[in-house]
Amino acid sequence: MSAREQLEGRNPVLECLVRGKREVHRIFLDQGARTDARIGRIVSLAKRRGVRIDRVDRRKLDKLAEGRVHNGIVAEVEPVALWSASSLLEYQLAHDIEPFWVLADGLSYEHNLGAVLRSALGFGANAVVVPTRRGAPLSPVAQRVSMGAVEEVPIVRESLFAALKVLKKAGVPSYGADMGGVPMGKARLSGPLALVMGAEGRGLSSKLRDKVTGVVSIPLAGGLESLNVSVATAVLMYEKRRQDGWFEGGGRRS
Amino acid sequence: MSAREQLEGRNPVLECLVRGKREVHRIFLDQGARTDARIGRIVSLAKRRGVRIDRVDRRKLDKLAEGRVHNGIVAEVEPVALWSASSLLEYQLAHDIEPFWVLADGLSYEHNLGAVLRSALGFGANAVVVPTRRGAPLSPVAQRVSMGAVEEVPIVRESLFAALKVLKKAGVPSYGADMGGVPMGKARLSGPLALVMGAEGRGLSSKLRDKVTGVVSIPLAGGLESLNVSVATAVLMYEKRRQDGWFEGGGRRS
Repeated sequence: MSAREQLEGRNPVLECLVRGKREVHRIFLDQGARTDARIGRIVSLAKRRGVRIDRVDRRKLDKLAEGRVHNGIVAEVEPVALWSASSLLEYQLAHDIEPFWVLADGLSYEHNLGAVLRSALGFGANAVVVPTRRGAPLSPVAQRVSMGAVEEVPIVRESLFAALKVLKKAGVPSYGADMGGVPMGKARLSGPLALVMGAEGRGLSSKLRDKVTGVVSIPLAGGLESLNVSVATAVLMYEKRRQDGWFEGGGRRS
Repeated sequence: MSAREQLEGRNPVLECLVRGKREVHRIFLDQGARTDARIGRIVSLAKRRGVRIDRVDRRKLDKLAEGRVHNGIVAEVEPVALWSASSLLEYQLAHDIEPFWVLADGLSYEHNLGAVLRSALGFGANAVVVPTRRGAPLSPVAQRVSMGAVEEVPIVRESLFAALKVLKKAGVPSYGADMGGVPMGKARLSGPLALVMGAEGRGLSSKLRDKVTGVVSIPLAGGLESLNVSVATAVLMYEKRRQDGWFEGGGRRS
């Protein structure tokens, strides 16, 4: 049997089917569930793809989801493909994709990892690097919170130091987010970029600080030292895309 | 006995003592806790203010915090002062404080409420309005996640419609965040402003949409409809302050 991951909830299962990036092996659906629009789409997409749907008792779903939110649906799916930094960067450069990577050092909460992935999709970051050992796993909750981003944003599971070495060799500048750096409006964030985010509560480690091209700060009022890590990541991603001229047309990106 | 709220964890208790906005009635400290820098400051500030410290067994703290994180310390404090929209606005206008309010319709997760308060402090928003009935309570977790912002950012607990009426009467423009509005780089967000954020998963209600001056959108890529509500709030607050020219000097605000 191949490796499997579990998705829980209507939205994650629907996003996985719609975006079509990985195989759905099997769906467990609450036999008492009302067929709303999302369930309807899930059932029709699953049929078209030949995915088996088992109608089960709600208690079976509660057990599968180990008490987490499942909204009447759980799916067994192919695990998210993980990249190595070198293979992803090679692929991007060969396909004229400008690298915009987010390296996140130890996102301790699965909600933060999910929110970072979601913002990465929204602001067109094309890699999220999480360390091999530390940090939140790509849990069902992180996948649910990502609102489908886990299907689209390439994920690299590798030491941040190794990833930075690969990026540096290819000439991609890296900015670490921390206090006492260049205020972000003054930093040049346009073009190829790697943003390095420190761990919650600890900030950027001095070892990582030594390895980045520069340090960038979000100027804050009120004697506040930092923002929530997923909030800070999004604000930096937004400023980067603003500098790229993304929002000048005013339209929505796709 | 006066009304009391509970703070849990070193940081919330320290922020409350340092910022000095509300009374600390009593502190329960783990008798086995190692005296680190924060505990040291808490003890010395408490002594100076005549706050009673009880050294207790860790199990007593676990019980007080009902299983939540407490890091060896729990405090009984005066509840956060809640404002009415009209009294706060009157105060701000009388003191030449430019209103920058965030109205949040039903933040279902206490973590999101805490994160919104934290970003509000960092970007100098001077009111967070949460509806009377719906939404996350100002729980010990929300207060902890706010990183001290709960001590500083005025909180209005009132119907969003009532608050909008008060703001409109005073000529403060309000922007609701939703899809299909003016892309935020094109919207005029500088000056007095109320940002109205919809509920998680549902967006801005049509009733609220009818009451705001305009609708503003964060242009997103990847077929994503929205960001996490605390992330979206921060990105909009940042853009507003950028338009205000806050970051042109490059320095840190206080």
